[in-house]
Amino acid sequence: MTCFRLLLLAALLGLAGPSVAARVDTVAIASAAMKKTYRAAVVLPASYAKNKKASYPVLYLLHGAYGHFSDWLTQTPNKQLVQSLADQHNLIIVMPEGETFSFYLDSPVNPTSQFETYLTKEVISAIDGSYRTIRDRKGRIITGLSMGGHGALYLSARHPDLYSAAGSMSGALDLMTINRKLSPADAAQRAKLWAPILGSEIENPAVFASNSVVNLVDQMHRNGLPLIIDCGVDDGLIDINREVHRRLVYNHTPHDYTERPGAHTWEYWQNALPYRCCFSSRC
Amino acid sequence: MTCFRLLLLAALLGLAGPSVAARVDTVAIASAAMKKTYRAAVVLPASYAKNKKASYPVLYLLHGAYGHFSDWLTQTPNKQLVQSLADQHNLIIVMPEGETFSFYLDSPVNPTSQFETYLTKEVISAIDGSYRTIRDRKGRIITGLSMGGHGALYLSARHPDLYSAAGSMSGALDLMTINRKLSPADAAQRAKLWAPILGSEIENPAVFASNSVVNLVDQMHRNGLPLIIDCGVDDGLIDINREVHRRLVYNHTPHDYTERPGAHTWEYWQNALPYRCCFSSRC
Amino acid sequence: MTCFRLLLLAALLGLAGPSVAARVDTVAIASAAMKKTYRAAVVLPASYAKNKKASYPVLYLLHGAYGHFSDWLTQTPNKQLVQSLADQHNLIIVMPEGETFSFYLDSPVNPTSQFETYLTKEVISAIDGSYRTIRDRKGRIITGLSMGGHGALYLSARHPDLYSAAGSMSGALDLMTINRKLSPADAAQRAKLWAPILGSEIENPAVFASNSVVNLVDQMHRNGLPLIIDCGVDDGLIDINREVHRRLVYNHTPHDYTERPGAHTWEYWQNALPYRCCFSSRC
Amino acid sequence: MTCFRLLLLAALLGLAGPSVAARVDTVAIASAAMKKTYRAAVVLPASYAKNKKASYPVLYLLHGAYGHFSDWLTQTPNKQLVQSLADQHNLIIVMPEGETFSFYLDSPVNPTSQFETYLTKEVISAIDGSYRTIRDRKGRIITGLSMGGHGALYLSARHPDLYSAAGSMSGALDLMTINRKLSPADAAQRAKLWAPILGSEIENPAVFASNSVVNLVDQMHRNGLPLIIDCGVDDGLIDINREVHRRLVYNHTPHDYTERPGAHTWEYWQNALPYRCCFSSRC
Repeated sequence: MTCFRLLLLAALLGLAGPSVAARVDTVAIASAAMKKTYRAAVVLPASYAKNKKASYPVLYLLHGAYGHFSDWLTQTPNKQLVQSLADQHNLIIVMPEGETFSFYLDSPVNPTSQFETYLTKEVISAIDGSYRTIRDRKGRIITGLSMGGHGALYLSARHPDLYSAAGSMSGALDLMTINRKLSPADAAQRAKLWAPILGSEIENPAVFASNSVVNLVDQMHRNGLPLIIDCGVDDGLIDINREVHRRLVYNHTPHDYTERPGAHTWEYWQNALPYRCCFSSRC
Repeated sequence: MTCFRLLLLAALLGLAGPSVAARVDTVAIASAAMKKTYRAAVVLPASYAKNKKASYPVLYLLHGAYGHFSDWLTQTPNKQLVQSLADQHNLIIVMPEGETFSFYLDSPVNPTSQFETYLTKEVISAIDGSYRTIRDRKGRIITGLSMGGHGALYLSARHPDLYSAAGSMSGALDLMTINRKLSPADAAQRAKLWAPILGSEIENPAVFASNSVVNLVDQMHRNGLPLIIDCGVDDGLIDINREVHRRLVYNHTPHDYTERPGAHTWEYWQNALPYRCCFSSRC
Repeated sequence: MTCFRLLLLAALLGLAGPSVAARVDTVAIASAAMKKTYRAAVVLPASYAKNKKASYPVLYLLHGAYGHFSDWLTQTPNKQLVQSLADQHNLIIVMPEGETFSFYLDSPVNPTSQFETYLTKEVISAIDGSYRTIRDRKGRIITGLSMGGHGALYLSARHPDLYSAAGSMSGALDLMTINRKLSPADAAQRAKLWAPILGSEIENPAVFASNSVVNLVDQMHRNGLPLIIDCGVDDGLIDINREVHRRLVYNHTPHDYTERPGAHTWEYWQNALPYRCCFSSRC
Repeated sequence: MTCFRLLLLAALLGLAGPSVAARVDTVAIASAAMKKTYRAAVVLPASYAKNKKASYPVLYLLHGAYGHFSDWLTQTPNKQLVQSLADQHNLIIVMPEGETFSFYLDSPVNPTSQFETYLTKEVISAIDGSYRTIRDRKGRIITGLSMGGHGALYLSARHPDLYSAAGSMSGALDLMTINRKLSPADAAQRAKLWAPILGSEIENPAVFASNSVVNLVDQMHRNGLPLIIDCGVDDGLIDINREVHRRLVYNHTPHDYTERPGAHTWEYWQNALPYRCCFSSRC
């Protein structure tokens, strides 16, 4: 759908593509809350090594369900995507761990799944302690895909003091399932996934509702953070994203919202991420 | 709404902003159809002078009503916006004349207003004859703001052989007024503007309808061109843009559609244009 | 979904339900255009026999695809529905034939399928000649279900001189299929159905487009007829009906639009028809 | 917009209109909660006097802001509207008092404004004690206009054990104002109206949010009550009603939703109420 032809032409013409010089660190970040250490990937822009006194903004980039911290470096068709965006926009890009189905929440039922605390306290503290970052909400942006899109909007809605902007790509922005038309098999499978994180939805629908981004729109309105949300029209999550957009239009919350061709795929996210960086620091 | 703070920080840190080296030509392009010569601005990327054998893609960038060819170079808060985008994306950016209210149509009632012919034949021919362009639809993209957004989608819908992608920012995508709730004074003023271009809407509603982008969605579906459309939620044209988006969703035409904070202003378009260039050649 | 409990209670309480006294005629109405005679059902309200000098308004009630003129009398769970509505609202209700897939058009490719002419000339003339009707557009309303919903809006949009109001229940309001996402098998089946009526959609998409209600909204705006449109949210046609509603909102055409629980079923239409009669003559 | 012409024709033809025989009582219903007695109007259908042993369903019909219990009998163009509907549908129609701006809530800040308690306990008890009603949720329906539309959906959402169906006409379904674009003067006026009912919205936005119907959609989903909601497209409340409809579509809550021509006027409500009675007991 996008103009790969032009890129190709540029290549054939011998025009230099962006030369990638970014450095990729894999770091271990301990969680006292979860008594466990997870790895994270940190991409430093090429300029980082040269500008020894400069402090850099940080983009926190979250992965989706069934994924891990390294996804954004290994799953995109262009394996240098994140590095080239770091270079282009002079951003540090941090990809922390969120496990296969944590939804970046502090689980009320499971002390070993406390990813809200991990991301908002432990990861930020470790990154700010190890790199020349702008140690302030003004220097932090958070975004992610699918479960990570929910995570980014959820954490920024609840911690507006920590981030200056937030985004979601193909976000799974509603945790509730009892208001959807699922087959019994799908409903059972979802219930099984959620049980160790939020318990039983049938017994505690309010827990699922109150932790869903779709119900945080008034909070987001009060926070006033710049927001950027997108979804592919062939993505099974498009209705949820449209709903969030309409609620944000309804309550007059400023936000960028985009629908694009595409589905829940890495091709889509590879295409979507650069606009995100435009949004963050302007092309 | 957007992250000027980060840009500012970058500046304070001494990170180099994009150095602008683009060349701006003002050229005269004659119209045999209209027996008149109009000027156009042509921005060449910095690499153009260096890569003597390279051919470049061209972005045709149309101005709005009550404007002229030079608007994009003089009205944006950042007076180097177009130049820096040309550099960044290795694009030739051409800004042709569309007069104050031509809507880029061939007027059926006015032989001195033949801008469809001018843009699709005379301007392309002149540019391809004067510069090292990719002389093919694959090397041409067309976009614009307001009246120019209509122009870009209109011309590309009717000439899919000439362009490989098209876009609209804050487009005035519906020429009809009898189906809107205008005050008599506004209706009279609109009728006066349209009379020299399309005649009387009351007498010939079909002429207005058939020339409106909002009614070309099936044609756009058949063409299959990549499309990018956006509008500010505080723009008086938002309902028209939502309607076009919904019709394109309805008839399954792939397109990028974005709503952003903002109104019908140069701040909005300065913000919107870079995403357009992302779309064209990828950040 | 609807309050059958209350009705039941009323019955248990011995409250008299509406006593049905309507007369049902089955009449033969010849078509000179098609050189064939079709039957129609005519329901006369109880008062018709008593008020020997009164003239009555007529509700034309169209059946759906794969159906026939008698459907409304035989397929509703309540077999006295039409009769009781005729009594209650003092309406003559005429159910003409539309064949299994005529879509109430004059086929440009098939002289034996000329149902626009049949319904707007031959049936009206026969009914006005045989019964004490109000022989004027003020005395005629037209509505129908599915294919008949399309027929009712289509015929009234093109013949606003003949009807004073029009409606559609679960209307198949878009004849085009090339802009939908059909499986090849479904597409082939649709093409086969349409071939004898409108020819090939791939060869003549404009014929399909121009005969679709979804594209007649500007005509409907100019006519200014009272319109009533509804659809069940579980009906496969809900997206098409939403699209028509949004286009009528967009171009400021007054109309009643309702979404209800339910699908493409006789239970739905039995529920929907009484509101239609409310609309026609007020409960 | 509606077919008064047909009604007129019927009249000219000598067809009998509905003869109204309903009885109207004005009763005093004390509130222990508020230490005050308010009046209510009770319309009994003609059959009530004849069927001495029958029990009747009750439609609770709420008035709007700045209004009183008698509005539905005095403000509709047709002063016999409620009576004729009571007759036609064999319903007792009760119009209780809601004061000029109670919103039918139990005010957390004002012990003299406890209308939730009044309507759900004291009024029902008084009506069931004085008339031959069906003393069960199956025999009670609640609806209203504007503030009363909010009241009807609000009370039924919170007391699904008391009502079998609920409706709203032109409902003011969102109490929040800080998420709207009000002029400072309008905002100040709204704040003044709300202060004695819910206190300060700026200090306690959650109180306003949690008492708004727009945020009770999950509760309504769980209750599963039949719902009927409508609004005029020229009503200032149309966006709020569209939002509620979309949320109910989004969470798969069965409901009837209608948009009609018209604004926030008694002509609109006179037109809307009969469909409501269709919904309640079927035409």
